[in-house]
Amino acid sequence: MLLEQLQAHDKTDLYPFHMPGHKRHIELPADAYHLDITEIDGFDNLHHAQGILQEEQQRLADYIGVKRSFFLVNGSTCGILAAISAAAPRNSRILLARNSHKAAYHAVDLRGLEVHYCYPAISDFDIQGAVSPDVIAQALETDPLIRAVYITSPTYDGVVSDIASIARIVHSYGLPLIVDEAHGAHFGFHPTCPRSATGCGADVVIQSVHKTLPAFTQSAVLHICSDRVPEEELERFLGIYESSSPSYLLMAGMSRLVPFLQENGERLFTALDENLSRFYERSRRLRCLHVIQAEDFGADCAFARDRSKILISTRDCSIDGKQLYDRLLSEYHLQMEMCSGEYVTALCSLMDTAEGFERLAAALEEIDGQTEPANGEACSFVARMYRGREQVCPIADAMDAETRERVDWAAAVDRVSGEYVYLYPPGIPILVPGERIDAAFAADMRELLARGLDVEGLRDKTAQSIEVLK
Amino acid sequence: MLLEQLQAHDKTDLYPFHMPGHKRHIELPADAYHLDITEIDGFDNLHHAQGILQEEQQRLADYIGVKRSFFLVNGSTCGILAAISAAAPRNSRILLARNSHKAAYHAVDLRGLEVHYCYPAISDFDIQGAVSPDVIAQALETDPLIRAVYITSPTYDGVVSDIASIARIVHSYGLPLIVDEAHGAHFGFHPTCPRSATGCGADVVIQSVHKTLPAFTQSAVLHICSDRVPEEELERFLGIYESSSPSYLLMAGMSRLVPFLQENGERLFTALDENLSRFYERSRRLRCLHVIQAEDFGADCAFARDRSKILISTRDCSIDGKQLYDRLLSEYHLQMEMCSGEYVTALCSLMDTAEGFERLAAALEEIDGQTEPANGEACSFVARMYRGREQVCPIADAMDAETRERVDWAAAVDRVSGEYVYLYPPGIPILVPGERIDAAFAADMRELLARGLDVEGLRDKTAQSIEVLK
Repeated sequence: MLLEQLQAHDKTDLYPFHMPGHKRHIELPADAYHLDITEIDGFDNLHHAQGILQEEQQRLADYIGVKRSFFLVNGSTCGILAAISAAAPRNSRILLARNSHKAAYHAVDLRGLEVHYCYPAISDFDIQGAVSPDVIAQALETDPLIRAVYITSPTYDGVVSDIASIARIVHSYGLPLIVDEAHGAHFGFHPTCPRSATGCGADVVIQSVHKTLPAFTQSAVLHICSDRVPEEELERFLGIYESSSPSYLLMAGMSRLVPFLQENGERLFTALDENLSRFYERSRRLRCLHVIQAEDFGADCAFARDRSKILISTRDCSIDGKQLYDRLLSEYHLQMEMCSGEYVTALCSLMDTAEGFERLAAALEEIDGQTEPANGEACSFVARMYRGREQVCPIADAMDAETRERVDWAAAVDRVSGEYVYLYPPGIPILVPGERIDAAFAADMRELLARGLDVEGLRDKTAQSIEVLK
Repeated sequence: MLLEQLQAHDKTDLYPFHMPGHKRHIELPADAYHLDITEIDGFDNLHHAQGILQEEQQRLADYIGVKRSFFLVNGSTCGILAAISAAAPRNSRILLARNSHKAAYHAVDLRGLEVHYCYPAISDFDIQGAVSPDVIAQALETDPLIRAVYITSPTYDGVVSDIASIARIVHSYGLPLIVDEAHGAHFGFHPTCPRSATGCGADVVIQSVHKTLPAFTQSAVLHICSDRVPEEELERFLGIYESSSPSYLLMAGMSRLVPFLQENGERLFTALDENLSRFYERSRRLRCLHVIQAEDFGADCAFARDRSKILISTRDCSIDGKQLYDRLLSEYHLQMEMCSGEYVTALCSLMDTAEGFERLAAALEEIDGQTEPANGEACSFVARMYRGREQVCPIADAMDAETRERVDWAAAVDRVSGEYVYLYPPGIPILVPGERIDAAFAADMRELLARGLDVEGLRDKTAQSIEVLK
């Protein structure tokens, strides 16, 4: 039974370099079932908040300095769906950074939108970088049909874009800027963290508080920072996408955030920063493995960087990302957040302990000592797969097309995709419905599968075939 | 802080005649945060289940006897959105029982559907009854454009429709039948409960396990019982509407259901049945208040009845539903689930205690003794408001219309609504966007507001005005 397996897991010595940000280092001061109620008298109604839930949400908004905040019990997913739906009229066009979470693509599908993509820079280590203000300016100058702009900052890899400059450009066209800050819920609370998009001019910001703050998985918040996206439309779509039976347990967890940060933020962010400094400095002594440092990103590649996402590159190493991930787990009981073709991600939060960093540093040193240097070009195909290709039709048309057939990757070349392909995590599509599959992509897919990465999105769970349009 | 208020609430003597079905009478054998993880190795991925989550979901499916079951961490809301989206192509037409939850209307909006409404019978006590098979047959005979059928059974009031007969009719047209069984998750597990739609020929069934079974709020399940709605389309839309960071806590709660029912079901359902029998028998002695009995529904009005939803009518009484609800809460510390104009609902589950029923029976007797009989016509306007009116345009067109204005109820007569109006609970729209407001409706709205019922859906939170199309 899942419950028993979770209890057993809690008794192991596995160290969590992954979400949720509470890292299981916080207690709930009551039995969970005893706090789990419904919208009875005195406990307000999330979808019509006028009492304690309105107060809790406004307390968060005031603490952050935004106009209004919404607790989201369906994670950032429902916030992203609602923000895009509220900002872009049905069948209109949106400017979307290609490295967006699949939820943004789903909003595009639901609302029948057209997409104008912009692309992030790519770093030396084949990591997707920032979206530059110039790229946004160019897109808006050439495409007058764009009705809203959506970018992700920070990325899953901790790369922050220059939101202030982007916001100025977007606003000069009278358009709203939505920022998916799911991975940056801790931003802005301490000088050691990057600034939050909420303070840089973004109009709507979505944050997964469960990812980097001590909140339950599936908890997120949406902040309204201006009047550019109508508040009433946001409420309308949150009312559609979010459960009408919101969990009081998840909301109780969110209600702790402000007092927790007020009481412990200074101490814990400082400790995290010290732990990270020690870790990054020590990791410079590795021979083959390489922990990505601030200087590994050029200024055009990262406006700022959230170093609480530790990326360990295997590019110059005889093992690949998946092998490193597996060794850290099985031999050192260190559960990483993610592995890609040539790096592994450790996700840290203010709840991490010095012991965790010590264990990770020691494990990396030991593995590094047993590993040979190698030619560093092996996996750059993964970053390449995230680049654009010909859009033949809108996502909604491709998803709803009734004449389709399933073919293997060899036969898929030159055909129009009827499905998504993404690695999970991070859940960013590498192929989008309506796009034409080229030979390089089909070859790269076979490489992805050969490396045992977690390919999702396809109806064929083995990912050996794809549905294409006839 | 919400958390503290929930803790304080748990220490009161308030008896919960409301959701969730665990009634706070079950323990979580660990600290909630300690069980709250993400999709790490060994714990599968809800959106791509191949391990323990696949096993847990299949165990439920096998126990119930359906083809496949999905755990839903966004409540029935996401199941309803996904089922309708998967069953009815974009811009097609659906046959919808008018007494459906707002989530069904939201699916209609998202997919741009046209709606053919059918209406439930109305009982003597102005309670919405069953949808008759004849009504479904007539609709399908006259409207060849219908692509899917959606009804709610049981209703919030526990009224069960004849799903077996309805399914036969729907299937004779080659169409799928979706049943919102959100309020009947306990059906089919014991001879004292009505049969579940899953065993009566429905194709897709959605159940809120948190409502009547011991599961956390926001937990629900979707069952696939046939091949009439493509499984892959259901997965596609669950992938869109459901959080990509599903709560392991909610899923752990769902994983307990089958073993809990296997171990305790017989004993607890029998005890519930005995408690209900005693309560219903004793309540026949009330003079003015009236507990709705099985015989109060004609055969055309209820195919079966789930008496674990206790409805206490004030129709023949000098107090109204709201007054009864308030007295039960403030004087007797009995928290009811809902009040409508002329009745109050107590929601029972297999976790209720004999003490709870004793307290409710005694409280009703005392209030009954202090109350005068009255003419019983006062509130029938509420049931009347749920009846149909002219549909001028589809919901999506009305919601997206940019030319709109806000008017008070007097000025709204003959105008086309740009908003929903519903009472919450139950969250069933009494006015739908695109419908023409008539004078009777506007007058009834003023009556609703005068009675202090909880009117929601309108952008004007005071519900004194409505946006209409220009």
